[in-house]
Amino acid sequence: MHAIDFHAHHSPLGAYASFTCGKFGAGGGLTIEGAKPATQDLVIGWIERDGTVRALPFYTGAVQDLSNFAAGGTSASKRQPLGDGLTRRMSGGSDTWSVGDLVFSIYTPVVPLPDPAVAGETALQEAILPVVTASLRLTNHGSEERHLVFGIGAGAACYRLGLTGGAQAVGWGRDFGIAALDQPGLQAWVNWNEQDWFEQRRDHLLGSSCGFVLPVPAGATRELQLVLGFCRQGPVTTGIEASYYYARAHPTVTSVLAAGAARYVALKRRAEEMDRELEASALDEHRRFLVAHAERSYWGNTQLLDRGGDPLWVVLEGEYAMINTFDLTVDMLFYELRRNPWTVRNVLDLFVERYGYVDHLARPAADAKRLSHEFTRDPKRLAATVSPPATTGLPGGLSFTHDMGVQGHFTPPGTSSYELSGLVGCFSYMTCEQLYNWVLCATGYVVASGDHAWLAARHPVLLACLQSALNRDDPEASRRTGVASLDSSRCEGGWEITTYDSLDPSLGQARNNLYMAVKGWAAHLGLSRLFELIGDAPRKADAEVAARRAAGTIVARFDPAIGYIPAVFEGGNVSAIIPAIEALVYPLEWKLDKALDRKGPYAELIETLGKHLAAVLVPGRCLFADGGWKLSSTSDNSWMSKIFICQHVAEQVFGIVAAPDSHAAHAHWQQVGSAEWAMCDQIIAGKAIGSRYYPRCVTADLWREKVRPAAGVRSPTEPGGVRAPSGSLRH
Amino acid sequence: MHAIDFHAHHSPLGAYASFTCGKFGAGGGLTIEGAKPATQDLVIGWIERDGTVRALPFYTGAVQDLSNFAAGGTSASKRQPLGDGLTRRMSGGSDTWSVGDLVFSIYTPVVPLPDPAVAGETALQEAILPVVTASLRLTNHGSEERHLVFGIGAGAACYRLGLTGGAQAVGWGRDFGIAALDQPGLQAWVNWNEQDWFEQRRDHLLGSSCGFVLPVPAGATRELQLVLGFCRQGPVTTGIEASYYYARAHPTVTSVLAAGAARYVALKRRAEEMDRELEASALDEHRRFLVAHAERSYWGNTQLLDRGGDPLWVVLEGEYAMINTFDLTVDMLFYELRRNPWTVRNVLDLFVERYGYVDHLARPAADAKRLSHEFTRDPKRLAATVSPPATTGLPGGLSFTHDMGVQGHFTPPGTSSYELSGLVGCFSYMTCEQLYNWVLCATGYVVASGDHAWLAARHPVLLACLQSALNRDDPEASRRTGVASLDSSRCEGGWEITTYDSLDPSLGQARNNLYMAVKGWAAHLGLSRLFELIGDAPRKADAEVAARRAAGTIVARFDPAIGYIPAVFEGGNVSAIIPAIEALVYPLEWKLDKALDRKGPYAELIETLGKHLAAVLVPGRCLFADGGWKLSSTSDNSWMSKIFICQHVAEQVFGIVAAPDSHAAHAHWQQVGSAEWAMCDQIIAGKAIGSRYYPRCVTADLWREKVRPAAGVRSPTEPGGVRAPSGSLRH
Repeated sequence: MHAIDFHAHHSPLGAYASFTCGKFGAGGGLTIEGAKPATQDLVIGWIERDGTVRALPFYTGAVQDLSNFAAGGTSASKRQPLGDGLTRRMSGGSDTWSVGDLVFSIYTPVVPLPDPAVAGETALQEAILPVVTASLRLTNHGSEERHLVFGIGAGAACYRLGLTGGAQAVGWGRDFGIAALDQPGLQAWVNWNEQDWFEQRRDHLLGSSCGFVLPVPAGATRELQLVLGFCRQGPVTTGIEASYYYARAHPTVTSVLAAGAARYVALKRRAEEMDRELEASALDEHRRFLVAHAERSYWGNTQLLDRGGDPLWVVLEGEYAMINTFDLTVDMLFYELRRNPWTVRNVLDLFVERYGYVDHLARPAADAKRLSHEFTRDPKRLAATVSPPATTGLPGGLSFTHDMGVQGHFTPPGTSSYELSGLVGCFSYMTCEQLYNWVLCATGYVVASGDHAWLAARHPVLLACLQSALNRDDPEASRRTGVASLDSSRCEGGWEITTYDSLDPSLGQARNNLYMAVKGWAAHLGLSRLFELIGDAPRKADAEVAARRAAGTIVARFDPAIGYIPAVFEGGNVSAIIPAIEALVYPLEWKLDKALDRKGPYAELIETLGKHLAAVLVPGRCLFADGGWKLSSTSDNSWMSKIFICQHVAEQVFGIVAAPDSHAAHAHWQQVGSAEWAMCDQIIAGKAIGSRYYPRCVTADLWREKVRPAAGVRSPTEPGGVRAPSGSLRH
Repeated sequence: MHAIDFHAHHSPLGAYASFTCGKFGAGGGLTIEGAKPATQDLVIGWIERDGTVRALPFYTGAVQDLSNFAAGGTSASKRQPLGDGLTRRMSGGSDTWSVGDLVFSIYTPVVPLPDPAVAGETALQEAILPVVTASLRLTNHGSEERHLVFGIGAGAACYRLGLTGGAQAVGWGRDFGIAALDQPGLQAWVNWNEQDWFEQRRDHLLGSSCGFVLPVPAGATRELQLVLGFCRQGPVTTGIEASYYYARAHPTVTSVLAAGAARYVALKRRAEEMDRELEASALDEHRRFLVAHAERSYWGNTQLLDRGGDPLWVVLEGEYAMINTFDLTVDMLFYELRRNPWTVRNVLDLFVERYGYVDHLARPAADAKRLSHEFTRDPKRLAATVSPPATTGLPGGLSFTHDMGVQGHFTPPGTSSYELSGLVGCFSYMTCEQLYNWVLCATGYVVASGDHAWLAARHPVLLACLQSALNRDDPEASRRTGVASLDSSRCEGGWEITTYDSLDPSLGQARNNLYMAVKGWAAHLGLSRLFELIGDAPRKADAEVAARRAAGTIVARFDPAIGYIPAVFEGGNVSAIIPAIEALVYPLEWKLDKALDRKGPYAELIETLGKHLAAVLVPGRCLFADGGWKLSSTSDNSWMSKIFICQHVAEQVFGIVAAPDSHAAHAHWQQVGSAEWAMCDQIIAGKAIGSRYYPRCVTADLWREKVRPAAGVRSPTEPGGVRAPSGSLRH
């Protein structure tokens, strides 16, 4: 670890809830629907006989105390930070701090979410029980009794919850509670803080702190076993009215805590099993950390809703809190399909039901090859930025919105919270990319689930998708190149963008864009596969033709003079981008080996992309000085989730194994550069500057596939570098 | 006005909600269950054709802008504060800012709350509709079109609410919305802020601001008519599960806004009627302001709940948010009894049902006359502070808790959130005072309502109250003095305190305390009156005996050497306190003229208290340098709510009219000393230091009784002074 002083989500599944902690002096605590970490005071440690509190350095003021102690001074309060010798071990299912004889662990077990339509509701309810468990253990090597203490400064009046069945509980508001499994000496408390409780030894219900204490006699070992519970009743969204799915089974925090206490051992056991699974992987320590950290922030952003009895799956977009942002769905897909493909189907269906639309297309002006670097939210400035389209009203087709709303509000049908017309940069439409995303997700779902009934019922949607994709290349078949070249009428003269909205023009513009071209190729491969499964041979053929056309165009763009394919196929752009290879992840995950075969129908494409990757993945192009991957040679802005996909593709398709120092750098970006925000996606030169508290980095889960190194791949030895395989690639 | 730069509550009735604004640069906005002012950005003004926003100086950054402009500079943003010539007029029902051709008014009409058991639920629902209305009018004397703008930076994603029937609406979350009555040109907006909207002229649903704009052509006058709506569904409390009563009629904010829009004119008309009523009163401008400001903060703290179909009346305790603090109920009583006595009955009944308890009593040690100045929350230090009681286990009796809980949590039966055992100061029990309070409230309720059926049913409670009160004097009849001299067993060796918990020992200790002695006298008068109405002559006589005994003891405590009665009847205390006269308000309000008659049975008491008041109400004792009243000569800590009661008693009972500069001082304490918190109660030397955002100052409503000046009273002429009547007092 580069540092242990950083926040992490610790979340149940689908509760949009977290017990976030880890950043020194920043507190942390429990949130529901929190788009940033809580700032409750956290006191986790023990109390000496004289009232001195020795606590992990999470509590408010701990940073100052640590610095005072380092300077030989003392704490102004009775709290003293346990800083010396403190270690943290974040693994698959547990996050553990150890110092001297104190061990604090937070358990976040993950299990696949059973499809309620198949396995029934009970199994699902068991999986989504909205609790996080923890243990706090002390071996008292001293000569006097100590009190283990776990306390939260909730910032709201606290009280005792009546809990039967072997646990005590405290809470605040209606939504939050903490239980501790009963044992001799255990005492729940409510007071202004742990020191007032210790002095008075009785509750004060005006106090806004609560927790537990447990005496530990000299020489003894004792452990607090904690259940942190979340429960919000009633409708929590607008636009679509929905409530938490867990509330069907557990309408109150008391019932949540009781269930959590009863399952404490099983939950801890599963978390420890996850630790072992991750430790047993072939990944180095940095990648194991990235996998574990990312998985936590993913679940912290998940929300399983009850929409009139039916499940509605939502992943929120971190600090932005957009609902089911489609260009996140398509990346988090791999993680979900390995566990619970039905949640992907659920999102796809809602996109069809409510968030699809049909547009026309515009052919940009001849001078549209001039790249626009201007970013403005003012559509009135559009004319000053780009020329009006040469042609409008061309046949378009079906696509989908960027997202389904934001912060609990489901936007009206056919609209997102993000997209605006009249722009050429951030906040413009992603019409073409979201069309590809639906196809890519649908193919992934069908491959992972084998749900051919669903596929058959979606035949009309797939027909519309194919036609729409072909039209976005060009409605006139003779002009088609396999690569999207038009803009949606929703842009009203503006230009479509990609998910890399705030990077730079190399990945910003959707038309004639290398990243999009390969993604389009993959989408056509997907369509071809789906039509094949449906038995619609003509459409299978159409899709294949389009894919070949795309491959040909991409290959033709390879520029021998620079040694790689420029990011944008117009305007003289020469940016070098890693995400040229991103979309190879789809055929890889679909096990369409033929598509990646160097003797197969796309051999030339694969070979060219391999050359591209080897050429761009060098210092000064797409590597930062610290070894971290740089998505575009012309921007310091990187998205970690995308790097993880590309590293997986590089390894699995091209046998290009990222150098260890890249993983070390990426871990540093999180542990140091993003310390206040748990997992962050958008990093500029090592610091989180956006997309914080974010779910998408769960793409790192791709690494957990058994690595199948290509023949001839050697471990890279030079820091900052990568080593291309000596000739042969994956078959 | 000393200043116009201060916050005020603007609240519906019983919704524990507020649109708070007024403090420059501090924003404001909408809260439900807010124990402090919102800090949303508020933009209220107009937008020039070039995008310049001219807004009332509420918006974030306005203070800096005002200071820049004063220094001849400019604003960093496109917002410019409307500071020059800005006036504010806070009257009974409206709060209005005017500058140039812009007028912004907030309407907070108050009507008596109909008893649903008598008038049915519909009438009550109409009274408690959870809206605040406002108007924003501009006469455009310029030569170019302007846009009136009302905008709130909600801090959460905003969206449009579908509203039919002549209004447009926007909102955020599930609980808050704003409607504007439709008219040509009106546009609702959602965006990052008003400037982005004006630039783009379209919504962006990622934005967390919303509002309305209305074009005003050159030469024209236009007015935005606004409805701010609040609606929280489902249970909102714990301990007792209850939801908002209004939600029975209006389950969604949309239905609240629709109803508010339909009643816009009527609501405004009632507010204007309240303005006229207040202006027509005999009060000077400072007292009118205090009445109006206090009434707003009272309603902002009111919460009418639905407890399984029955109404449950709650007043929260300002920033502390305690539920139905009994020593506030007894002061706010006068306001409530004139409007809706049933809410008082509702609270009294819940105190009997859930928050009564029976104790024993302890006789303090002989050295208890030594006053304790020590304040600690540690009961283990009790022994070091005072000697253990001389006798414990004496018969006690019924009393009531200090409060019913805090911040939405109803404490378990028989317990409050505030009181703790083992203390001699703040947070100790108020057992004796709360007993008196129940009796005083009950008497007031019966006198105001004539509800003799309720009274008859409460006979057993009154018997228990009488016995309890007599025991608190002394269980041995021979030792009785009419003044409480014992401490509750709940104190566990500590001492009871009074509502003046954090003042100084002059008003802190409950035993042998002048303030409590007169309050006890009044309680016995009340009991006597109630037993008379019930027809229980023996108990009427017992209560009368106790009242006479109390009167005799108090009179005997008059110290000719110092010219007044010392605050505490032991320990050599010589503090001079104004609240000696406070409890005369009860017989005054009950119209027990005989009790206040200088030829009646308590003539000596009244005369002695009159002498006391005249002696203490002099500079250096109970007057601050600015003319404000000082409750105790030995403390700079004052409670305005109590001052208001005492000023009323002084005028009505003794004809001692407070000097105008006292009212000016008190207004200054609020407008300047409490500017960030709306109405505040606890003031130290002109600054709010506690009890902020507080309901209790509504005692100022007592002033609105027709003033009946005693014969011979002249207006005082000396600043800082008061003038005692020249001999005769009220008959």
